[in-house]
Amino acid sequence: MNVNLGDTIIALSTPPGQGAIGVIRLSGPEAISIVDKYFHGKNLTKVDGNTVHYGKLRDEDDKLIDECMATVFRAPRSYTKEDVIEISCHGSTYIIEQIIHLFLRNGVRHADRGEFTLRAFLNGQMDLSQAEAVADLIASDSEASHDLALRQMRGGFSEQIKELRQELIDFASLIELELDFGEEDVEFADRQRLEDLVRKIQKVIRSLLDSFHLGNVIKHGVSTVIAGRPNAGKSTLLNALLNEERAIVSEIAGTTRDTIEEQLNIKGIQFRLIDTAGIRKAQDSIEKIGVERTIEQIAKSTVVIYVFDVWKISPEELWQDVEEFLEGSKVLTRGSKHLFIANKMDLNPYTEPSDFYKEGLISKDNLITASALNRMNIEYIKEKLYEMVISDPSMMDQTIVSNSRHYDALHKSYESLDAVLNGLASGITGDFIAMDIRQALHHLGEITGEISTDDLLDSIFSRFCIGK
Amino acid sequence: MNVNLGDTIIALSTPPGQGAIGVIRLSGPEAISIVDKYFHGKNLTKVDGNTVHYGKLRDEDDKLIDECMATVFRAPRSYTKEDVIEISCHGSTYIIEQIIHLFLRNGVRHADRGEFTLRAFLNGQMDLSQAEAVADLIASDSEASHDLALRQMRGGFSEQIKELRQELIDFASLIELELDFGEEDVEFADRQRLEDLVRKIQKVIRSLLDSFHLGNVIKHGVSTVIAGRPNAGKSTLLNALLNEERAIVSEIAGTTRDTIEEQLNIKGIQFRLIDTAGIRKAQDSIEKIGVERTIEQIAKSTVVIYVFDVWKISPEELWQDVEEFLEGSKVLTRGSKHLFIANKMDLNPYTEPSDFYKEGLISKDNLITASALNRMNIEYIKEKLYEMVISDPSMMDQTIVSNSRHYDALHKSYESLDAVLNGLASGITGDFIAMDIRQALHHLGEITGEISTDDLLDSIFSRFCIGK
Repeated sequence: MNVNLGDTIIALSTPPGQGAIGVIRLSGPEAISIVDKYFHGKNLTKVDGNTVHYGKLRDEDDKLIDECMATVFRAPRSYTKEDVIEISCHGSTYIIEQIIHLFLRNGVRHADRGEFTLRAFLNGQMDLSQAEAVADLIASDSEASHDLALRQMRGGFSEQIKELRQELIDFASLIELELDFGEEDVEFADRQRLEDLVRKIQKVIRSLLDSFHLGNVIKHGVSTVIAGRPNAGKSTLLNALLNEERAIVSEIAGTTRDTIEEQLNIKGIQFRLIDTAGIRKAQDSIEKIGVERTIEQIAKSTVVIYVFDVWKISPEELWQDVEEFLEGSKVLTRGSKHLFIANKMDLNPYTEPSDFYKEGLISKDNLITASALNRMNIEYIKEKLYEMVISDPSMMDQTIVSNSRHYDALHKSYESLDAVLNGLASGITGDFIAMDIRQALHHLGEITGEISTDDLLDSIFSRFCIGK
Repeated sequence: MNVNLGDTIIALSTPPGQGAIGVIRLSGPEAISIVDKYFHGKNLTKVDGNTVHYGKLRDEDDKLIDECMATVFRAPRSYTKEDVIEISCHGSTYIIEQIIHLFLRNGVRHADRGEFTLRAFLNGQMDLSQAEAVADLIASDSEASHDLALRQMRGGFSEQIKELRQELIDFASLIELELDFGEEDVEFADRQRLEDLVRKIQKVIRSLLDSFHLGNVIKHGVSTVIAGRPNAGKSTLLNALLNEERAIVSEIAGTTRDTIEEQLNIKGIQFRLIDTAGIRKAQDSIEKIGVERTIEQIAKSTVVIYVFDVWKISPEELWQDVEEFLEGSKVLTRGSKHLFIANKMDLNPYTEPSDFYKEGLISKDNLITASALNRMNIEYIKEKLYEMVISDPSMMDQTIVSNSRHYDALHKSYESLDAVLNGLASGITGDFIAMDIRQALHHLGEITGEISTDDLLDSIFSRFCIGK
């Protein structure tokens, strides 16, 4: 990771490939003067910031490369807080290459991944957690992940961390003061107030840590397996949920052999629905592979939708199947969420759902009667899936941690605060307490980047796309 | 094709997919006011043209979609000569979709392919041939095709056509004047001067028509087949030309079965090099298919490089092979260009190239001795290939026709002028001559779009990418 701010960098900021326009971005002290040298139009070094100018870009031999628009941003009013120029040219890969090469030949360096955002961070435009949110925002593909990234980018999370940190710093400085007085045995820092503060901060951190599960769900979606015996109606249910013909639905048992993954968006949360081969004593070796894959899929999933045919299966058979297969994949012991769908209710309207209840396994909380074919109760199933994952919808409006780096830092900070509490309980001296507080501060500071190392920056910004 | 200029259109102008930024363009009377309605920052309806502004884009429910930059262009100082806004947002496909949908819900229409450029044409920003050059420019992938498109876009070709047309119009109006005088038998238009003018214009058109071959070569590249007996060194030659290991080179005869296409750029001209299976009496059926394909490839190519092994083949055998296979693919009769490479000169340094000469087929003009393995004479082969295609390099600086629509129109115009000359020779009356002149004017006018129909515009702009 190049943290040298003295040079000028360049990259294509729009996706590669042919298009109507391409935007090439330069940032750094020479950005405006170097472009001006090859730009024939207004003198760009003299124009105001935030203005756009038409001109011809010519190379060193005065050969015309393209007619383009140059947008000038003057430091600090730019994304990187440096001088920035964006060249909007015709979206030909040949032209884009020519323009970038022109500037590379003339002292400009090609930007690393995320280097514009790195500079924005280094120049104080945003903190580290906000910079990370920029990459998340670009990658967002659902309403919830978009909202989450946007909130983080706008600094809500950072503010909260900074507040916690400030309170702790204030206290730490009192303790450090005690240390200056050495042997004099004075206590500027009230131990009871410190304990109260640490507990308060731990409570906030705990709730942030707890939000990580939700953050993960929002950012990566929910892997949801549809399982059940052959011909129970799994593919039909998948189609009904997606409201389109996707899987091959057939009357012949065992039609679905390959697992199929589909995206279902419920109120902004992406459910990755995986249809599976029916679970039964396999008839042939290909089918056997399908069944094994199903059990694997179940083991990896967050939610299992178990479909059964109320017309063909007895409660006893259901219980046996469920124990055999779900236990086989350790779903029940692992505590994944499972939803039972009593399907084909249209064929057997006299079914009593309660006949299928079994203590600790199936109850009215996780059994829904349905007819996938007639789309009966399909919307209710969607509602239920959402509830299973988002137990408290109000959490969606609170600060949610979605980044595992943040989770780790919060976790370490929590542990350091535990050490502070233990130290207070055992009455250890101020210098040890101060050390644990500094440790907690360090981990909190890593989140927003008040504490950062080259390695950390490297691992964060290498996830970015070129040109951002 | 929608030629209604009353509405406001929108499209993503950058290539689709995830990237650092995406640029969404709106053009039309409502462009600025509609964006301003959802843009929270400066009042865009009040800002100057050619300025860029930071703001938050919120939907109808005040929900934040993205933080973005809006560039305002005011009519007529914009690409389309209409009010234009470019929204530069985070390059997330979700965000781009949200922004476009926001405006589609609020009275903006999605732009057709090339519709921004169509508007630029309809509003007199550029003529039709210039508009076509925009699409060519975006598709350009070599120096020569880029230069050609750029020159056409800048109007050199249009100027020439317009001049020819103007001279003809001046004359035509004199003849039309004669018609007004009806039976009075006056001649305002000097018949000799008209004939001279027509011949002069025809000469210019002829040279434009002649440039079309070159234009095609520049725009589409030169299909170049490398043929010869198995083990003659075709793949090694291909690698030597490309200066990289591309084809599988092996000692075993008949290694190359599939045709391989590679791009070789010689002074800005793209040669599409096609390596082929060796030509010989095929040993098995798969190989036979390979040989048949080779003959097909030869028949379709512009240049054939015929490689033979000076160590293994006698002049008589060469002549026999060449007549058999090249005649079989009708290359010789069709007049395609062929270059003979006497390969493996390192193995047989006593070879006299002249031994292989044969009247009307092989001479020092199309035979080059080489050793592909040792890269001997490789640069000379490249030079020769360029010369075979670009017989007169100075033509590169003249006006070159590369568009088959223009070629057709020029051709028809030339024919109408022939009719004018015939009419003059046979002394027919002015009204018939005037009709032929009008016909010639019509075809010339089609090139620059002074004459255009919806169908014509449709076929031109549907070749564009979305957002241009």
